[in-house]
Amino acid sequence: MRIAQVAPLYEAVPPGAYGGTERIIAALCDGLVEMGHDVTLFAPRTSETIATLEAYEDPLRERFDADELVNLAPHLHLQMMADLYARRDEFDVVHSHLDIWTFPFARLFDTPTVLTMHGRLDLDFLHDLLPRYGSVPLVSISNDQRRAVADLDLTWAATVYNGLDFSTYGDVSHDPDGYLGFVGRIAEEKGPLAAIEIARRCDLPLRVAAKVDPLDEPYYEEEVAPLMGPDVDFVGEIDEQQKPPFYAGARATLFPSDWPEPFGLVMIESMAAGTPVIALRRGSVPEVIEDGVSGFICDDVDEMVEAVRRVGDIDPDACRQRAERFSAQAMCRGYVQVYEQLTRARAADAHIPAQRQERVPTT
Amino acid sequence: MRIAQVAPLYEAVPPGAYGGTERIIAALCDGLVEMGHDVTLFAPRTSETIATLEAYEDPLRERFDADELVNLAPHLHLQMMADLYARRDEFDVVHSHLDIWTFPFARLFDTPTVLTMHGRLDLDFLHDLLPRYGSVPLVSISNDQRRAVADLDLTWAATVYNGLDFSTYGDVSHDPDGYLGFVGRIAEEKGPLAAIEIARRCDLPLRVAAKVDPLDEPYYEEEVAPLMGPDVDFVGEIDEQQKPPFYAGARATLFPSDWPEPFGLVMIESMAAGTPVIALRRGSVPEVIEDGVSGFICDDVDEMVEAVRRVGDIDPDACRQRAERFSAQAMCRGYVQVYEQLTRARAADAHIPAQRQERVPTT
Repeated sequence: MRIAQVAPLYEAVPPGAYGGTERIIAALCDGLVEMGHDVTLFAPRTSETIATLEAYEDPLRERFDADELVNLAPHLHLQMMADLYARRDEFDVVHSHLDIWTFPFARLFDTPTVLTMHGRLDLDFLHDLLPRYGSVPLVSISNDQRRAVADLDLTWAATVYNGLDFSTYGDVSHDPDGYLGFVGRIAEEKGPLAAIEIARRCDLPLRVAAKVDPLDEPYYEEEVAPLMGPDVDFVGEIDEQQKPPFYAGARATLFPSDWPEPFGLVMIESMAAGTPVIALRRGSVPEVIEDGVSGFICDDVDEMVEAVRRVGDIDPDACRQRAERFSAQAMCRGYVQVYEQLTRARAADAHIPAQRQERVPTT
Repeated sequence: MRIAQVAPLYEAVPPGAYGGTERIIAALCDGLVEMGHDVTLFAPRTSETIATLEAYEDPLRERFDADELVNLAPHLHLQMMADLYARRDEFDVVHSHLDIWTFPFARLFDTPTVLTMHGRLDLDFLHDLLPRYGSVPLVSISNDQRRAVADLDLTWAATVYNGLDFSTYGDVSHDPDGYLGFVGRIAEEKGPLAAIEIARRCDLPLRVAAKVDPLDEPYYEEEVAPLMGPDVDFVGEIDEQQKPPFYAGARATLFPSDWPEPFGLVMIESMAAGTPVIALRRGSVPEVIEDGVSGFICDDVDEMVEAVRRVGDIDPDACRQRAERFSAQAMCRGYVQVYEQLTRARAADAHIPAQRQERVPTT
């Protein structure tokens, strides 16, 4: 199949460091090429892929100021989309990761276009916008993600769980006597304070491998840093090479995320290292973690403290095996099913002149 | 000709009060219909027009907060454009007033699309964006407006000066012994402080008919209000009915605008009342004012003071006659020429398959 993939222009694919969406797009493109598909990736020029790269722009995040991010960035994304759709006959399917900027193009052309919603959907303006494009096929990255818009008449093509290439995780082995780990971003909704409390109540050392965004610096300085002590090791942001040993060295990864997490890559990375995840029951958690097999799903901090004490009950090999459900290959198979479904639907409509297929919406 | 006109969704067409672009679109649509054209106006639902109204949204400015203006408003404009281009076969030409949101659609479809640039062009992000769409036909509202982007390779179809319906100005007659007038918006670049200084040096009363935007309130409170005195009458914003007597009652209208004004409707309204305009030589001023006939073009405040003393040299009837060059009819004729030029160009290309005509840009 001839597949166009469209990435945001903010970060390279894969990203230098933090950037979940870009890591997923990278794994998806490489996986689809390995399956024999003809993949063209529209992405920043510093991207690295075995797909054909249509190189746009140096990544915007590192060079745009706030004014440019608001006034110029949207138009660079729209320009990329206009370029892509001018070449629409070269593709059997367009898979966009540009969120709502995709909609006008998906409405205007009968080239099958599917849009993965990578972010949270519980935002007021989305509630207004999404039903205006109710017929555009969407992919959710967990079933729970759809809950915030369950009252809207939308076209969900599938849930396709995020997947990663876990080959580098084969080299490490889980240390059942290690520290407690916290990976991600320092932000209130990620629950770093709960992680510190849990570690102290369990009398175990905590290692925090986390990024502090400029936006989150006040929170870090005022709320998190004062609680640090010799029992909390803040190691900063870690890269893809550092992750397998970091996860494997932990007896458990704490995931006290207190918001409707749409997916949560930290969970599957930890599982791939054989390290159980102790998580709050929020968002996608019950779909990603199998309670008692790859970790424990808890309703509050007390239960998380209790779960740390039971972490030896988890078999690291069974935990690791569960990560296979979230491999890059599994994700690619899921998306290929979506693409096939859309191209079959188009073929079935092929006797209708293209003009007729355009949806002229009522206002 | 079947003409689609697309207005911004922020204000009704015509607007309740301040809103130059919306007043121009209103005059253009009504004028084109009167010329016998088939005009469809895509605009907020509270608009009033003799064209066919495709009614979208209640005007956004009065109901959207800052978050919605950034996150939702662009998408409502894109949705309207997607709806319009899904019906592109119904129109011979699309005339957009949506600024740069028009570009991706203009690139993707061979329905002739022309875009009037209503705002200032001396902004950094425009300098980056405009050349990416160098083949899209643009209309400037003065020749001077193009100066900021003179180094870029753009397609200027024409300069079409703004025009208004001056029928209500026929009922008033110019008072050569009246006050000095200032009309517009209280903002530093509009020069209200210069207007006060000029009136005082001439020992004449000043009447200020101006809007204070929320954004400009600190400037008004700190810089302008302290200089007010019994010789300065601040009458606030005036509507279309109040304008003819306000202009006619002034011996001259002061236009000390100190930025590259792209057009300046105040000047032509004053001319229509037979009231000369005393203006700084900036932006469009030398194209709109004929020095010594419809006002005086000055290089500084000293020259403006001197010009007030010579205002009796101007013949109000000659001044009024100059406004005819900026009538709604003149503007409509200018745009029809542009539309004809674009549709002729399309007809000449008609033997080339539509697919071939799409421009696939290099990146």
